[in-house]
Amino acid sequence: MPDIFQNDLFLRAARGETVDRPPVWLMRQAGRILPQYRALRANFPDFKTFVKTPEAAAEATVQPVDELGVDAAIIFSDILVVPEAMGLNYEMLEARGPRFPEVIENQAGVDALLSGENAAEHLGYVYDALRLTKRTLAGRVPLIGFAGAPWTILAYMVEGSGSKTFSKARRMLYTNPVLAHTLLQKITDTTIAYLTGQVAAGANLLQLFDSWAGELPPAHYRAFAVPYLRQICEALPGVPKTVFAKSAWFALEDLGELPCEVIGLDWNTPPAFARARVGESKILQGNLDPCCLYADAETIEAGTKEMLRQFGRRHIANLGHGVYPDTPLEGVRAFVGAVKAWRYAHG
Amino acid sequence: MPDIFQNDLFLRAARGETVDRPPVWLMRQAGRILPQYRALRANFPDFKTFVKTPEAAAEATVQPVDELGVDAAIIFSDILVVPEAMGLNYEMLEARGPRFPEVIENQAGVDALLSGENAAEHLGYVYDALRLTKRTLAGRVPLIGFAGAPWTILAYMVEGSGSKTFSKARRMLYTNPVLAHTLLQKITDTTIAYLTGQVAAGANLLQLFDSWAGELPPAHYRAFAVPYLRQICEALPGVPKTVFAKSAWFALEDLGELPCEVIGLDWNTPPAFARARVGESKILQGNLDPCCLYADAETIEAGTKEMLRQFGRRHIANLGHGVYPDTPLEGVRAFVGAVKAWRYAHG
Repeated sequence: MPDIFQNDLFLRAARGETVDRPPVWLMRQAGRILPQYRALRANFPDFKTFVKTPEAAAEATVQPVDELGVDAAIIFSDILVVPEAMGLNYEMLEARGPRFPEVIENQAGVDALLSGENAAEHLGYVYDALRLTKRTLAGRVPLIGFAGAPWTILAYMVEGSGSKTFSKARRMLYTNPVLAHTLLQKITDTTIAYLTGQVAAGANLLQLFDSWAGELPPAHYRAFAVPYLRQICEALPGVPKTVFAKSAWFALEDLGELPCEVIGLDWNTPPAFARARVGESKILQGNLDPCCLYADAETIEAGTKEMLRQFGRRHIANLGHGVYPDTPLEGVRAFVGAVKAWRYAHG
Repeated sequence: MPDIFQNDLFLRAARGETVDRPPVWLMRQAGRILPQYRALRANFPDFKTFVKTPEAAAEATVQPVDELGVDAAIIFSDILVVPEAMGLNYEMLEARGPRFPEVIENQAGVDALLSGENAAEHLGYVYDALRLTKRTLAGRVPLIGFAGAPWTILAYMVEGSGSKTFSKARRMLYTNPVLAHTLLQKITDTTIAYLTGQVAAGANLLQLFDSWAGELPPAHYRAFAVPYLRQICEALPGVPKTVFAKSAWFALEDLGELPCEVIGLDWNTPPAFARARVGESKILQGNLDPCCLYADAETIEAGTKEMLRQFGRRHIANLGHGVYPDTPLEGVRAFVGAVKAWRYAHG
């Protein structure tokens, strides 16, 4: 039985239907910008325990819908639950980000990883969180599921942490491309099983985050990233999909050919540049500079309107990256309010 | 009296003269990739003492000319000597990068800074290093001087360190653009005085590094970066200039209009994309992925030749970023060798 929503603007826009205004949500809307989140999070000793507690994840997911009136919820989780389910444990260090005590360096390391359903079966806590969220949302807005794109997940599994250059991960693409492809395929198989599970648990749209897309030269992005994004999109035909490949301006033509509905854009990419490359069929999502939300309400409103004007129709309003944790709540409200007050011209 | 060089290929290419092959050098060629550098550096307690010792800086500058046979030397220094000369002290932490104990937050902070010649007069140790280097080089190859671009220097002075997002620095552009412009002008005035001094001390070409260009949305790059790059280029008409604005693919048209001779490209930017935007008059510099040099000699040679083929004429061969410190010396040699073996087709 299909979901019935009180507000299905987000899904109608993602499917390319004609709407009166673009829907709006923010990447990382569930999280530190909300006092409710910070209060909830204080009950847990660490980030990973929080993520693995479905009641907490579900509550964090719904908070921005209550507080900000956004047009979609996105499940509170982390892209690194996938490598963990494959057998590569990580730590989340406050203020320093993720760290993998062991990294993938050779064939034996890749061979030891679980993949596909054997890995995804360890992610039941995410499915539980999705089901709980659906119950709490009770049809108010659609629920977004997500995963990291295979290249970005490989980057963490080989590098072992965030990095300014990801030179260890990128080195593997030159020195051992066969091993890289084997690892990317295992990540892809796991991601397909995981996202299939998310859809079964109620996710209405799936977003793939390729956070480190911009580190690759175009030829490597075409060889090591795009084919796996394609496999994932093709394996999930029944649900709308968004691909957000940050800083991959050079790959927009390739991304435009993926069987997905929505392409996310960072704040460097002019909407007209992206539209000319991905074609008319895609919906574009983005892309206000997250730093604009530090400004006064007037500046935010002007910046948001200018962005909306540049995108025109076939657009889902968002920032060009996750909202920064220290963004004032009034700034977020000014952004959401400016989008919700916007109306497309007739005709 | 103009310099007379045994090898002036680099300057002839930068001036747009017809050459048989592109010249080649590497950003960060003077540094940790060379065992001679590591041995020399071990005599100094910290990076800043090393940079401020002209004999050491000059020796490090010449080492890659001896060891690698590159077509240009670049003075061993750091872009952060400029904020220091303006009165904002920094520490260079091993493995963690630079840190400013105090940052610029308000008008009083900007007012307290020295600028122009009053700041640049504290940079005599760089001029001394340039003069010493010229003497040691004895005309073997031209010597490149450099400085950080004003936006990148502001980013460090406001942020206080490297950052994944530079959100503190970028916030100032939204919340206090007048203060940002005041600071950018003081940095620009200092940079002009500093680069004038570098030319007087013997620099044959000047390169501006806008390392954090890619963090800005296009409108901000146009407002807060390009006008100051223009001022600097216009103030130094007598010497060829290179602008390397990393990840600023969206600003290539603007960069193409600057009165400089050479535009540097990162490894994401296809040469044909850049050429179409900057026009025919500029020389392009770059842009092999630094990670390619981790590969075997065959892969490096193939990657280098493919890059040379894509650029065609009016090109200075380099990497798309500074060479990574753990790059094997054989990899660097394979790259330099592949460029030096290349010959342009006649006609």
